[in-house]
Amino acid sequence: MSSETLKELGEFGFIQKIRHAAPPLLEDVLVGIGDDAAALKNTGLVTVVTTDMLVEGVHFDIRYAPLQMVGYKLVSVNVSDCCAMNAQPAHFLVSLAASSKYELPALNALYEGIYKACARYKIDVIGGDTNTAVSGLTLSGTCIGYASAGKIVTRGGAQVHDLLCVTGNLGGAYAGLTLLEREKRIFLENSNIQPDLSRYPYIVERQLKPEARVDIVAFFEKARIQPTAMLDISDGLANEVLHLCKSSRKGCVIFENRLPLHEETAAFLEEVRIAPLIAQLNGGEDYELLFSVPPQDYDKIKDDPRITVIGYITEEGAGCKLHLKSGEEIDLEMKGYNAFSENFMPII
Amino acid sequence: MSSETLKELGEFGFIQKIRHAAPPLLEDVLVGIGDDAAALKNTGLVTVVTTDMLVEGVHFDIRYAPLQMVGYKLVSVNVSDCCAMNAQPAHFLVSLAASSKYELPALNALYEGIYKACARYKIDVIGGDTNTAVSGLTLSGTCIGYASAGKIVTRGGAQVHDLLCVTGNLGGAYAGLTLLEREKRIFLENSNIQPDLSRYPYIVERQLKPEARVDIVAFFEKARIQPTAMLDISDGLANEVLHLCKSSRKGCVIFENRLPLHEETAAFLEEVRIAPLIAQLNGGEDYELLFSVPPQDYDKIKDDPRITVIGYITEEGAGCKLHLKSGEEIDLEMKGYNAFSENFMPII
Repeated sequence: MSSETLKELGEFGFIQKIRHAAPPLLEDVLVGIGDDAAALKNTGLVTVVTTDMLVEGVHFDIRYAPLQMVGYKLVSVNVSDCCAMNAQPAHFLVSLAASSKYELPALNALYEGIYKACARYKIDVIGGDTNTAVSGLTLSGTCIGYASAGKIVTRGGAQVHDLLCVTGNLGGAYAGLTLLEREKRIFLENSNIQPDLSRYPYIVERQLKPEARVDIVAFFEKARIQPTAMLDISDGLANEVLHLCKSSRKGCVIFENRLPLHEETAAFLEEVRIAPLIAQLNGGEDYELLFSVPPQDYDKIKDDPRITVIGYITEEGAGCKLHLKSGEEIDLEMKGYNAFSENFMPII
Repeated sequence: MSSETLKELGEFGFIQKIRHAAPPLLEDVLVGIGDDAAALKNTGLVTVVTTDMLVEGVHFDIRYAPLQMVGYKLVSVNVSDCCAMNAQPAHFLVSLAASSKYELPALNALYEGIYKACARYKIDVIGGDTNTAVSGLTLSGTCIGYASAGKIVTRGGAQVHDLLCVTGNLGGAYAGLTLLEREKRIFLENSNIQPDLSRYPYIVERQLKPEARVDIVAFFEKARIQPTAMLDISDGLANEVLHLCKSSRKGCVIFENRLPLHEETAAFLEEVRIAPLIAQLNGGEDYELLFSVPPQDYDKIKDDPRITVIGYITEEGAGCKLHLKSGEEIDLEMKGYNAFSENFMPII
């Protein structure tokens, strides 16, 4: 079966094809896809804007990442940045540059994933740009969100004695990536051995199809919690804690025995003999939220299974410390995920 | 001299390096570069958002396009879409995926061009994303602009008897591209022959460093002109006229002898024996504005050397016609630039 390519169909034809499946436009959209730009009615709110790329061979490997999931992830990683500002995501723009190896069914699958994620987050698609590329697939997303004035949370507002909290659990996406890379290596060495991912569905999904914590932003609103500082954990907890403390000009103590770990992550890491702490501190792409709240908010969060207090904020001079299970206290270090050095941090 | 690469410096280090040279933030910016997302105060205005990519080997060839100009062009093409909505550009986000062949001096040059264009258009840079790529350089820009409610101009509001107008002149960017490609071919065949672009500085600049028509948006405001439909001419006049008419459900007549041509474009096209009409109708990337205004606005535009009336709007059933110098009338056809078929339309 010969499939149409983007070249044959053209950008205009492609946009026509994908438009009918797009999620419905929100009420504040005056002009959506198909004009020179989108136009948004004034909402009376603060507007939040963020942009994030996914690059083939750097952020995803299409040998094991289905394009639906790549599309879903593109939306999640952008929505996650919006959540990290304590804003409600509303609109999405998607640009892509695809080589001719990507025929229309592949691009349709990509858009299926994008639309599925948009439906999940109740956001719409108001624009984008489609292009050919000499090689590979590069995706760029832009997410626009809203928040009431005064609700915006930066990285820079943590106060001494604030509680440092994370949502969900840590290291799962890194464990999933390690598993996928291992199975790929085995398959490349001997193509008779089919990859077996069935024992670890959770960590595979954490890596391939992460979820942004829109539920936590809604919870803050409902519980009347105003975090003092927040960011999303895309580059590993250690980096994000250090960013938060640097921006806030504070120090902190976090506790190894408080860091949340999913049982499946634990089981896989044990199988491959990676210390959980390494995955939790330096593994990237969990897209959980790291935030600080005043100590008096403790009662509001202590019974929520989605939130774990992992430490507290100290004076700047005290540095950023990790209290190990052994009782030892060490300095937190910038390590792990670096978009320019390696896809994944080295396994000790 | 060995230059640092992005890999060695890391994204965080790179952002620190480029931030100090960034243009100053506008007044409505609550949070700029360096947090999870940018946050913008409510302005009481309609927000316009557009995104456009430039892909190495498709939209630019670094064998002749200096990276400063590529950066400048990235801003211009996005700002141009904003102008096409009759909005004032305000904020820019820039994402890139660069292979390791792009060392820091190259990326600094790229940002120099981006910042120069931002200064020119009086906009700021509020965010972005920097990534490695397996090969090539892919750039994605997002421009945010503002307009009063009621000032937004779509492609779809043209009325019968409206005047169809263009700004500047047509075919220059295409002529520049043809020249650059010719000189590249000659150089590749014999590297002793140095490219000579000095005879045609205007068309080279039209191709490599286009300007967005922010001046025209300002003029509309001052002269109290509200175009009924507008778009920017990125894919050739013929395509854009057809888009405008299709969106407005109207027809039109345009006149060959009214299409503006720069003398340098004319001279070069004569040298290479390309009919000017081909370049004017189907050559892409002029980034001029095509718009319709009610006939009673004629007095407001007739003496402005930047604006040329090229035809008028008719009933939908009358089709889109081109009145040739010969007296013949032919149908306008979708041709020329297609992001997916060819970089440049075939000659003749």
